[in-house]
Amino acid sequence: MKVRLMITGGTIDKFYNQSNGELEFDKTHFPEIIERSRIEVDVILEELLLIDSLDMVDADRQLILDKCKKSEEDFILITHGTDTMCETAKLLGESSIDKTIVLFGSMVPYAVSNSDALFNFGCALGSLQLLESGVYIAMNGRVLPWQDVEKNRSLGVFQPLS
Amino acid sequence: MKVRLMITGGTIDKFYNQSNGELEFDKTHFPEIIERSRIEVDVILEELLLIDSLDMVDADRQLILDKCKKSEEDFILITHGTDTMCETAKLLGESSIDKTIVLFGSMVPYAVSNSDALFNFGCALGSLQLLESGVYIAMNGRVLPWQDVEKNRSLGVFQPLS
Amino acid sequence: MKVRLMITGGTIDKFYNQSNGELEFDKTHFPEIIERSRIEVDVILEELLLIDSLDMVDADRQLILDKCKKSEEDFILITHGTDTMCETAKLLGESSIDKTIVLFGSMVPYAVSNSDALFNFGCALGSLQLLESGVYIAMNGRVLPWQDVEKNRSLGVFQPLS
Amino acid sequence: MKVRLMITGGTIDKFYNQSNGELEFDKTHFPEIIERSRIEVDVILEELLLIDSLDMVDADRQLILDKCKKSEEDFILITHGTDTMCETAKLLGESSIDKTIVLFGSMVPYAVSNSDALFNFGCALGSLQLLESGVYIAMNGRVLPWQDVEKNRSLGVFQPLS
Repeated sequence: MKVRLMITGGTIDKFYNQSNGELEFDKTHFPEIIERSRIEVDVILEELLLIDSLDMVDADRQLILDKCKKSEEDFILITHGTDTMCETAKLLGESSIDKTIVLFGSMVPYAVSNSDALFNFGCALGSLQLLESGVYIAMNGRVLPWQDVEKNRSLGVFQPLS
Repeated sequence: MKVRLMITGGTIDKFYNQSNGELEFDKTHFPEIIERSRIEVDVILEELLLIDSLDMVDADRQLILDKCKKSEEDFILITHGTDTMCETAKLLGESSIDKTIVLFGSMVPYAVSNSDALFNFGCALGSLQLLESGVYIAMNGRVLPWQDVEKNRSLGVFQPLS
Repeated sequence: MKVRLMITGGTIDKFYNQSNGELEFDKTHFPEIIERSRIEVDVILEELLLIDSLDMVDADRQLILDKCKKSEEDFILITHGTDTMCETAKLLGESSIDKTIVLFGSMVPYAVSNSDALFNFGCALGSLQLLESGVYIAMNGRVLPWQDVEKNRSLGVFQPLS
Repeated sequence: MKVRLMITGGTIDKFYNQSNGELEFDKTHFPEIIERSRIEVDVILEELLLIDSLDMVDADRQLILDKCKKSEEDFILITHGTDTMCETAKLLGESSIDKTIVLFGSMVPYAVSNSDALFNFGCALGSLQLLESGVYIAMNGRVLPWQDVEKNRSLGVFQPLS
């Protein structure tokens, strides 16, 4: 089993830029995260974007969709900012690609203490291998299908619609 | 869905005792780990043991088996030292309990830098909710049934038998 | 020997607010930092401000000056944002208080990975006990008097004027 | 000003060996620690030993003494295990080298969470530059001369003799 891991940015990959005091993007932390996780699954890393999901435009989502369609692997993980993760999941879901796709991110950057990044990555990779084809979001320890997930902004958690 | 999380010890829960320089057990880190993971799944924490899995005797494994049988929850996670995790999984598996049970641990303690603890917990909890009843081990990003898993000691990874 | 540690904010004490993705102030990390440092020196913690040093106005600096004058302890540490640390040091220095005062901060927040916070605190506390009365800045492993220190913004380091 | 930093091992430099579950030595963490501390002082790193201070024999201490005598730099930092740090400080102190020498270590390894390593390094480097020639120990936020320091094993702290 091979897994393609597509990087798009989001909170999970931000780092602290000491010259301006801002959380920004430099390069993805996933080579380090994968090594630390001691993964025996074959993971192919592909950096598509490194942007805040609030800055994601239609062309960006189209790029992600195209990459999913063209991927040789049937199992795809996508890192994504939490603010518009559900929107991207919907676009992918409605395209009915015959692959298993799990999106995930984190509430706290990997590079900041008390981060949920590693946990969410584990949850996404663990569930990816067991799910039927479709598009899902793995956050807060739950794996929810794209048709039935929303981000509750006041609580800062992903939850089923109903 | 409710999940029972049974603590038995193992590398994942060791801490550094500065008075003797040894890695030992004090109390489980899982209340902190659960909060950090921002889990929305209902997890009931139960500390059964806090021991090295090389020190685990038949009575300890019998205790774990009894607790699994009596658990009101159908989904059970068990933290466990890696050295004899497969042995405990076998005992639970042969008892044919009609519940989904996933064992996990870590190669590096949660309290030591570069730990795989959070990742493995995520992988175990994510897969637990999707697996049919049976006994599994979630390590190294894979979820393997008790009948087909061994620890490769020279590589320090869990792998299928064949 | 008693040391008064005055908190004013700055990068060193920022934390990640997951609800808006910003680095902000909540409460000082110094109770945790002091415990972690296993300090045997008597340190009295006093939170004066929790602000970015770019937001510091004359009244804030006057408050710090007043608190230094009124302090019963002759040895004072002050946490401070790096952007205007030299300005506050100058105000304190020109007042010629007969106490030893060392300002410090960090380039990366204590709560972010790879932070220099603990190192700078150690450097400040270690030198404080050996310095004659006067006002100093302890950053980048150096201890410089207020008359001869500036922040080189392009390099992100504190250095002597000449 | 140039500082020579001599590495001898001790708790501060131990790492977790996942193949046997022991805290051992591999290589010193100080290149990483120095970079993280954003030091502008010229530090020359020299690895003399990487051993537990309980395993240190006369020949090891003699090596440290010789290296201190021959060092071109007048300011020397020495990392050291805490158990026999006072003994090595005494040997160096009695030799009356006309240099400033500060020994330090940590109660918790740099690679373990909640470590005091960075703090102690800062305290040692900050005080080194202000001390007259002699031999000192910088631990627990204090800088004590070799003639007046002991490790209180029950409390796990360094303290003056009287």
